[in-house]
Amino acid sequence: MAGFDAALEAATAESWALMERIGADTRGTLGITRAPYDAAEQRAAEATASALRAEGFAAEYDAFGNLHAVLPGADAQAPAVGLGSHFDSVPDGGNYDGLAGVMAGLAVLLAARRSGAKPARPLRLVGLRGEESPWYGTAYLGSRMALGLVPHATMGKLVRGDTGRTLADHMAALGFRGQPGPSLSPQTLACWLELHIEQGPLLIGRDVPIGIATAIRGNIRHAQAKCFGEWAHSAAVPRDFRRDAVVAVSELVMAMDAYWTARIAQGDDNFVCTVGIVSTRADQHAMTKVPGEVAFTLNLGATDPQVLRQSGEHAAARAHEIAAARGVRFELGPDTGSQPTPLDPALVDRLDAAAAALGLPRHRMPTVGHDAGMFAQAGIPAAMVLVRNRNGSHNPHEALEPEDYAAGVRVLARAAMERAG
Amino acid sequence: MAGFDAALEAATAESWALMERIGADTRGTLGITRAPYDAAEQRAAEATASALRAEGFAAEYDAFGNLHAVLPGADAQAPAVGLGSHFDSVPDGGNYDGLAGVMAGLAVLLAARRSGAKPARPLRLVGLRGEESPWYGTAYLGSRMALGLVPHATMGKLVRGDTGRTLADHMAALGFRGQPGPSLSPQTLACWLELHIEQGPLLIGRDVPIGIATAIRGNIRHAQAKCFGEWAHSAAVPRDFRRDAVVAVSELVMAMDAYWTARIAQGDDNFVCTVGIVSTRADQHAMTKVPGEVAFTLNLGATDPQVLRQSGEHAAARAHEIAAARGVRFELGPDTGSQPTPLDPALVDRLDAAAAALGLPRHRMPTVGHDAGMFAQAGIPAAMVLVRNRNGSHNPHEALEPEDYAAGVRVLARAAMERAG
Repeated sequence: MAGFDAALEAATAESWALMERIGADTRGTLGITRAPYDAAEQRAAEATASALRAEGFAAEYDAFGNLHAVLPGADAQAPAVGLGSHFDSVPDGGNYDGLAGVMAGLAVLLAARRSGAKPARPLRLVGLRGEESPWYGTAYLGSRMALGLVPHATMGKLVRGDTGRTLADHMAALGFRGQPGPSLSPQTLACWLELHIEQGPLLIGRDVPIGIATAIRGNIRHAQAKCFGEWAHSAAVPRDFRRDAVVAVSELVMAMDAYWTARIAQGDDNFVCTVGIVSTRADQHAMTKVPGEVAFTLNLGATDPQVLRQSGEHAAARAHEIAAARGVRFELGPDTGSQPTPLDPALVDRLDAAAAALGLPRHRMPTVGHDAGMFAQAGIPAAMVLVRNRNGSHNPHEALEPEDYAAGVRVLARAAMERAG
Repeated sequence: MAGFDAALEAATAESWALMERIGADTRGTLGITRAPYDAAEQRAAEATASALRAEGFAAEYDAFGNLHAVLPGADAQAPAVGLGSHFDSVPDGGNYDGLAGVMAGLAVLLAARRSGAKPARPLRLVGLRGEESPWYGTAYLGSRMALGLVPHATMGKLVRGDTGRTLADHMAALGFRGQPGPSLSPQTLACWLELHIEQGPLLIGRDVPIGIATAIRGNIRHAQAKCFGEWAHSAAVPRDFRRDAVVAVSELVMAMDAYWTARIAQGDDNFVCTVGIVSTRADQHAMTKVPGEVAFTLNLGATDPQVLRQSGEHAAARAHEIAAARGVRFELGPDTGSQPTPLDPALVDRLDAAAAALGLPRHRMPTVGHDAGMFAQAGIPAAMVLVRNRNGSHNPHEALEPEDYAAGVRVLARAAMERAG
């Protein structure tokens, strides 16, 4: 593998440079913005396709815009080892959430080809689309359609909040019509290995470069929750006559913060709760009016399905109590979340062993929702390498170090080549 | 006064009809919108000016767009009895908050002229502009400029939130240039009597048609408060690492609600607290991001200057504590509020006596910020008649009954004619 290791080191550096070029090309005034099935995400995919084609790979899009490239195996018909992640970003996010995993897979394919590696199974790089939820209110668009978990006919009806156009419309504008159907299955993929930056501060805090994901946290996600009170004069209406939607939502926020604190006190460090958006109704609110309507989001996460369900029930019960006490009405709206997903124990151990063999300190930990969870749900064994990254993700300050990226790519490559045989 | 009473009854009915016409002319899809120094408010003023001119009054605008009409007194040089209120409304408010007081003054002037009344002092109707704060973030624009409390040169720099244009710009578009200076003073006005709908539910609750205001509540108003936390990934960042601006603002909202409850428990039914606007930063927020910035308003009210100051200090202290505990930063921003203002005891008693003489049940009570407070601050004795009104104000459902309006006009007229001699 000496030839492979040297090739990997060079390909890793090239993939890093490509990632930085894509970042420069998709950066706005605040941060990186690559909306699913929009121009910037497409340019990221095209830049990746060009790099693959320059090495002789037939880089092709499936019906859902996901980019595929295959290094043939000795057994051309064998299910492949899948590698990759997603091209898109949140609005004004960072460059590495998603893209680093595509670039890592690219580096492995380039190194394998250049070093003349001929594994038993093919290696398949998949650059996915539309993993981030802010745009259409739900996540994993590209992987769920490619895996047949949600038909294009259903998914395509989703409307993008900022443009008001449907997903099918945005896809069609790029030539992706969802026909023919699923492009990925247990028949085409033997497993899925995804590298991703760590999105929290644990690896930085522990001074460990590599995380080995053990499970994917599930979510209860209410993207369109509302609280309805009654608009009234801010100074003339006594407290007991008010139906104040801001106070009611604030009480729910504090109740869920208290619930979280209680879970931590019980030793559970996997539960999370976020109210990321809160807004009084802009066409009616005023400093001098008791607020009559608030829109907000409620996003709960847990690795244990029972904890997740219980937390959702707790939120609903508290909302019910607060509504009764304060004369308001809550509509939490549809839940666009997903169930917690265990990752494949054998693959998890394989990644852990690869890191150990490379002498890299690592930490086993649950992770957040990723495309890998969709592969697992489709019956394709999946696992993830997490890479230390300062400042978290979903913000412009993501700060992956090239050395940590390279370490992650080495772990991914070792596990992938072993699994491919 | 038999001739005057009959004339007043007819003029009251005409003024009601005019008020309804102005309402129909300035109603949008949700409610009444008469922005200060904008077309709808100007049409309301013009309709009033036409009604006055049709009766032979020289209705004229001052340099600040306030409409004036004078019924001469036997002593033409004597300071006048001032009557009136404001033309403008909050966005999507109701028709009666402000306009009812202008119409009531109009009815008194018409009745006095038609009945040939010749009081010792003149009666001066003033239809004021820009009393409501949502538009420019501060209230009493027309009265403060007319009374010389704030120079036009200073006030004119205020920017209207929805148009981005300055007050001076909006005024100039209607021909109001702020020159020459103040149009109202203790030399021109002996007193100010303002009729206004009650904006709360107390008179409805007590089944009493008339309120006699005893004092005007002061406010601490932070129209541009902000809380800065840190944007982060919603699922990957543990609770202890978060700097969540929504949780911090929610905690402040609940702290102020608890403060209010404590004041009520101490027997204070004058304090009020409202957070009318809350909004996570729209160009960066997402369901999947820990919120890093929240804009909000904080509006505290009290009749006792010491309670008001103490409540503001409490809010600042709690914001400071919450900031330290949660790693966020609060900027409450400028305070655009006003001091509590006592009304003139002799005038208050005169209104109370007038209601008693008319056999009308009445309730003495503090009220909220009104132009009357500006007259009082300028050294002009002021008092207010409040009229029962269902559904509060600052909303499209204001529901003043014509009978209650007529009762209020009778109280106003009796006190005004007595004071004018």
